[in-house]
Amino acid sequence: MDIVTFGKLQQISEQNLLDIDRAKREGRKVIGFYCLYSPVELAIAARAIPVSLCGTKNDPIEAAEKVLPRNLCPLIKSSYGYAATDTCPYFRFSNLIVGETTCDGKKKMFELLAEFRPIHILQLPQNQDSGKALSFWYQEVKRFKERMEKETGVIITDEKLSDAIRLTNKERKAKKVLMDLAKTKPSPISGMELLTIKFKTGFFMDKRLGITLMNEFVEEIQRKALQGESPFNPDTPRILLTGVPVGIGSDKVVRLIEKGGGNVACFETCGGYRSVFTIDEEKEPLQAIAEKYLATPCSVMSPNPGRYELLGEMINGFSVDGVVDLTWQACHTYNVESYSIGKFVEKNFHLPFLHLETDYSESDTEQLRVRIEAFLEMVRG
Amino acid sequence: MDIVTFGKLQQISEQNLLDIDRAKREGRKVIGFYCLYSPVELAIAARAIPVSLCGTKNDPIEAAEKVLPRNLCPLIKSSYGYAATDTCPYFRFSNLIVGETTCDGKKKMFELLAEFRPIHILQLPQNQDSGKALSFWYQEVKRFKERMEKETGVIITDEKLSDAIRLTNKERKAKKVLMDLAKTKPSPISGMELLTIKFKTGFFMDKRLGITLMNEFVEEIQRKALQGESPFNPDTPRILLTGVPVGIGSDKVVRLIEKGGGNVACFETCGGYRSVFTIDEEKEPLQAIAEKYLATPCSVMSPNPGRYELLGEMINGFSVDGVVDLTWQACHTYNVESYSIGKFVEKNFHLPFLHLETDYSESDTEQLRVRIEAFLEMVRG
Repeated sequence: MDIVTFGKLQQISEQNLLDIDRAKREGRKVIGFYCLYSPVELAIAARAIPVSLCGTKNDPIEAAEKVLPRNLCPLIKSSYGYAATDTCPYFRFSNLIVGETTCDGKKKMFELLAEFRPIHILQLPQNQDSGKALSFWYQEVKRFKERMEKETGVIITDEKLSDAIRLTNKERKAKKVLMDLAKTKPSPISGMELLTIKFKTGFFMDKRLGITLMNEFVEEIQRKALQGESPFNPDTPRILLTGVPVGIGSDKVVRLIEKGGGNVACFETCGGYRSVFTIDEEKEPLQAIAEKYLATPCSVMSPNPGRYELLGEMINGFSVDGVVDLTWQACHTYNVESYSIGKFVEKNFHLPFLHLETDYSESDTEQLRVRIEAFLEMVRG
Repeated sequence: MDIVTFGKLQQISEQNLLDIDRAKREGRKVIGFYCLYSPVELAIAARAIPVSLCGTKNDPIEAAEKVLPRNLCPLIKSSYGYAATDTCPYFRFSNLIVGETTCDGKKKMFELLAEFRPIHILQLPQNQDSGKALSFWYQEVKRFKERMEKETGVIITDEKLSDAIRLTNKERKAKKVLMDLAKTKPSPISGMELLTIKFKTGFFMDKRLGITLMNEFVEEIQRKALQGESPFNPDTPRILLTGVPVGIGSDKVVRLIEKGGGNVACFETCGGYRSVFTIDEEKEPLQAIAEKYLATPCSVMSPNPGRYELLGEMINGFSVDGVVDLTWQACHTYNVESYSIGKFVEKNFHLPFLHLETDYSESDTEQLRVRIEAFLEMVRG
């Protein structure tokens, strides 16, 4: 299927670095983000530019392993490697990096990353207790606000913060509408196409451009869907992908599922459905931000009830035929949680479940291909 | 060298389980502990029996791997495996297990362990910030106090807590005097002997018995030292072992160093020097407990300045010739921190440094032996 809006996506992506460069020369600060727990609204409200940092490609991992252990999550090694080899333009632009105490590997990697750039570490609680954890986290968000103010010289008023929230909520809603296209059976858009759009717009310095573009994608694809166009046929197995973050470069499993005759219809991942929870626009903005971000259902939370809830909602909403749970090598929280997720999926939804642990390299691609094809056979019944 | 007090250690160890069994039948509660961050004083003050839980042997790991990932720290797998196979008598005795959010693997393992016993999870902050982290942690210690009161029906007064603190401080001081025997050059006691005494007395239900016994060991060994007895000669390389916890069953590296002609003169580990920081007896007891426990210099803290400080003190105090940093397989915090520890040791003390990553199995023993012997050669110069 030929989606012409991809041409525009490519064009804006290429222009994006030049735009950031110009904005930076005009005096705007660039703040680098890694993780869905870090509230970008504070950067936006301070008229800084929040950028996503690179961490989805295999290339810089070899360099990272000179300092970091080999037996560590490729996302962490890739992120560090990009910084150490100075090959991520967004890292190079960043005046400040935002880290967070999500997992052991990241937490300790940030200590070493501090060699390259100033870092602000958000102390993330390890559960979502509405009392103590939330009030602790609220203080952390407030401390980050103060850091942003210091960094930019801009006073972040409630009004500016509310504006930023409205903008990011609009982006979340646009992304949700885009992803929800795949609720149609067969889906008019492939998982790889969805991933590409979400990933590339995620780097745009101007969120408005991303929102407009996602809306254009939706319009074009809906038009095609009305004409009965789809990359899939009605009995293509519809797979829910859950687990670790995936992006362009770390899309191996998505590619294998779709090349093997399946359709990744939805993503219960950080770039997927986990990223479209909106912030309450009626509440005091800082409190609303703290609540929304803490509620992110990542496996670093113990317990992590939101993930089960979200999975249930998605399995039904997307008419899912099978669940693939992806763990990056040595990511302990997803790896351990997979046991309970598998039991949950099998017991409550009687769906086939496949847990995969891999890294960014291609060394196990053939082995994964065989396992995924066997799984798709089983899903087809 | 023949230390007769070992006979008594063996005798009390054997009697210990019977004593716990009897105390339990008399109505006392048993509280199971895993980690140095969990304040045993709250259990003691509530007239409960704090016990150390098993987690240093390889045997139950195979059973654990039916549920937990293979690529996980053996300490976590062993702990879970003991519980799942019901082969740790201390776990069996426990009315309540105390867990804590130290590292990713433990945190998520405790979710699964809850199938076997009620668990109280202490939310440990991830840095030692004297403001926010400490006040959050103080609240957690207080919540644990309330849980102990509920569990035992005993009201924990400040007086009872101060009594408990005096007792555990006495134990810490006795243990320090015992370990400090090895400051004499050559050491009158081997690392394996030290490890055995510390490990076995750690399971005693009556801390007074352990204190008395450690004092007896000190007396006997000092007597022998005065007669010039030592398992080592004056040029035996004196090794500081730092890193993950070691115990009987996970003593492979200690054995290899001492069989290879070295002496593990001191342990910068949880069972070693990290466990002898005393609690301030002048302060409000709960606050003093919170402060002491939070200051524990484990690599889960980010940053972890106390470990560098302690290492410096020990390298000088024990006339150390070389440093071995031990990481259990897939323990990310120690594994990543090792890079900085190595630089610190080499830059500040110009000492040979060896980082080892291994598990509880014997599969790599030969390879480790070769590396350790080569390292000892280098230490000898």
